[in-house]
Amino acid sequence: MENLIQQSQKFKDLHREALKYINLNPLQRGGILSDAARKIVNEWADGYSVCDYCGGCLDLIKNPPIEEFVHDKLPKFLGTYAARLTNGAREGKFAVMHSLCEKGDTVLFDSNAHYSSFVAAERVGAEVVTVPNSEYPEFKIDENLYAEKIEEIKKAGKEPKLALLTYPDGNYGNLADAKKVGKICREYGVPFLLNGAYSVGRMPVNAKKLNADFVVGSGHKSMAASGPIGVLGTTSEYEDVLFRKSPKYKIKEIELLGCTSRGLPVITLMASFPHVLERIRGWDEEVSNARWFLDKISGIPGIKPLGIQPTEHDLNFIETPVFYEISKKHKKRGYFLQKELKARGIVGIKPGLTNFFKLSTYLLTTDEIKTVADAFLEIYEKYEDLLE
Amino acid sequence: MENLIQQSQKFKDLHREALKYINLNPLQRGGILSDAARKIVNEWADGYSVCDYCGGCLDLIKNPPIEEFVHDKLPKFLGTYAARLTNGAREGKFAVMHSLCEKGDTVLFDSNAHYSSFVAAERVGAEVVTVPNSEYPEFKIDENLYAEKIEEIKKAGKEPKLALLTYPDGNYGNLADAKKVGKICREYGVPFLLNGAYSVGRMPVNAKKLNADFVVGSGHKSMAASGPIGVLGTTSEYEDVLFRKSPKYKIKEIELLGCTSRGLPVITLMASFPHVLERIRGWDEEVSNARWFLDKISGIPGIKPLGIQPTEHDLNFIETPVFYEISKKHKKRGYFLQKELKARGIVGIKPGLTNFFKLSTYLLTTDEIKTVADAFLEIYEKYEDLLE
Repeated sequence: MENLIQQSQKFKDLHREALKYINLNPLQRGGILSDAARKIVNEWADGYSVCDYCGGCLDLIKNPPIEEFVHDKLPKFLGTYAARLTNGAREGKFAVMHSLCEKGDTVLFDSNAHYSSFVAAERVGAEVVTVPNSEYPEFKIDENLYAEKIEEIKKAGKEPKLALLTYPDGNYGNLADAKKVGKICREYGVPFLLNGAYSVGRMPVNAKKLNADFVVGSGHKSMAASGPIGVLGTTSEYEDVLFRKSPKYKIKEIELLGCTSRGLPVITLMASFPHVLERIRGWDEEVSNARWFLDKISGIPGIKPLGIQPTEHDLNFIETPVFYEISKKHKKRGYFLQKELKARGIVGIKPGLTNFFKLSTYLLTTDEIKTVADAFLEIYEKYEDLLE
Repeated sequence: MENLIQQSQKFKDLHREALKYINLNPLQRGGILSDAARKIVNEWADGYSVCDYCGGCLDLIKNPPIEEFVHDKLPKFLGTYAARLTNGAREGKFAVMHSLCEKGDTVLFDSNAHYSSFVAAERVGAEVVTVPNSEYPEFKIDENLYAEKIEEIKKAGKEPKLALLTYPDGNYGNLADAKKVGKICREYGVPFLLNGAYSVGRMPVNAKKLNADFVVGSGHKSMAASGPIGVLGTTSEYEDVLFRKSPKYKIKEIELLGCTSRGLPVITLMASFPHVLERIRGWDEEVSNARWFLDKISGIPGIKPLGIQPTEHDLNFIETPVFYEISKKHKKRGYFLQKELKARGIVGIKPGLTNFFKLSTYLLTTDEIKTVADAFLEIYEKYEDLLE
């Protein structure tokens, strides 16, 4: 015990280095707290802080007004009949699949789906069929292929229990026509889940308008909330399936294990909500900023954005063979790029990656975006001579 | 949208009233942040804050030193071969049951088990057989009944897939002899899960010494961490069952959906860890404080603690028929007690309850405990005349 105490002192004083830098990691850009949320963090940081006046249901707590948020504001926001809090988008996807599928059932995903969608299916024991993308350079999902794949699954004697679309996907920021996918799914009677981890809280998303039976969002990824927290919405048709109650404890919802993201995450989600609504109104500007940035760095020889262009999202995938060529001759190898960016006040590119990487310009000021674009250009110019 | 923005402004400025009071809610006492954790909250409150340098596995992150914490300190602390972070104790229990059970399988719980254990079993589709307690007033679990029940299940042609003990239970704070239960389970070859939501982080708990194959703890309940977060430990025998990897994404663990409690919760868990280790050394004093308190309020006619006495835990269940009698004649009815306590700077008793309630004295100073005991006595004396 004495030893363990000694060796654990280091955990007391941990600092977040990345705070001092412009952070391009797409994971991080949408989860920065609003000023309103930041102001109350200290009051609500203790363990189960929101549960002082809980009568047994997280989503029915009146003080703080979680009930109003979850049962009134959130469904309006998501365009769903009912909504709940989850521990994250992935946990929401698992809850949907676990409610609809038995082991051995088949589900249909876009092939750009996040790894956690596949892992959730594995946890459920469901087989995944994928809608292919168009491959390099667009990696586009053709919505009509959902119909084709549903037919295929049926022909093989199975009934697809769920169709999922990643909106946008987390690699290329491609936004497929969700409404069209939803319409196809409805025609075939296949429940449709929209994974909005990178859209809900950034851009307008309305499940009803997009013909989605389920929608998941991520508080820490895109709703300016402290993690882990997600949102999950559904229709009146699926409410009792997804949020079915325990036979033994009548008020507890089985799929949520009674309660989910208790404590600071829900308070920050609520406190940031007005800010999130406001920023969604500025979405067009975010897209035009991303386009400006991509356009700018496409001026460097060989650099080009992948995914559907012009981009419709702040998350983008960039091919940078020129940096890869430099890395082969640089003594830091693949790490040179990270080091050079850091020297210019920038972090968030995956360490060691030079051939391609993804980044996000979300909520960066135009000055910051210019700094980033200039940094890439400067680094290229600095090492131009290494290339023959 | 305009309306929603208007109506959501109220969420921006939420304050936690209970902070100004002595909080007796057992849920809250063990989750108060340590000073060290509180100091760094602001740095780490953004969304996915710990993931700046993530290579794909939460538990392998080196900066901040999550890897060292999860793979070295935590197993030592829990007395397990392997450990991971979860979104909470209930999520840990579900992960264990989901790893071991098929639908229709049978699991064995103590009848004092937390509702979330039963709901987790319902989510898995497992049938629960319970080891009865001795009922009023001790509600004691006879460890030998685990053997009896296992025999019964086997006689009915089933194999119990898991045995669970709630250590202590969340109503009476009873600590059964976990080691003995573990020994019985081992003799029968039944995996044994210890639910330490109210013990891990408060009192010494070593899974190996208690013959437990699995242990879950709660960061927000008992480890001075911001919620939601839990810990989950297991043996080398079950490591590959519980933490099995995705066939498609080799580094992702299926049962954890790739990653769990990302962000502030893990940082506060780590920052509070030295404090938690220290306070565990003061456990005997916590127990003696609880005994002093129970002894003191047992001086009020009719008031007595339930559960095994003298208590071995800070969480206690108290029968208070005298307050119930007063409530019948008080114009505030059942809410009078809450109101009177609040007037004396005390919250945390379930609103409306007067006949019995649970409370915790954990980490209260002796002065605070005296204030609470005096408050109950004063309230009794104030309304003594209402009783004939």
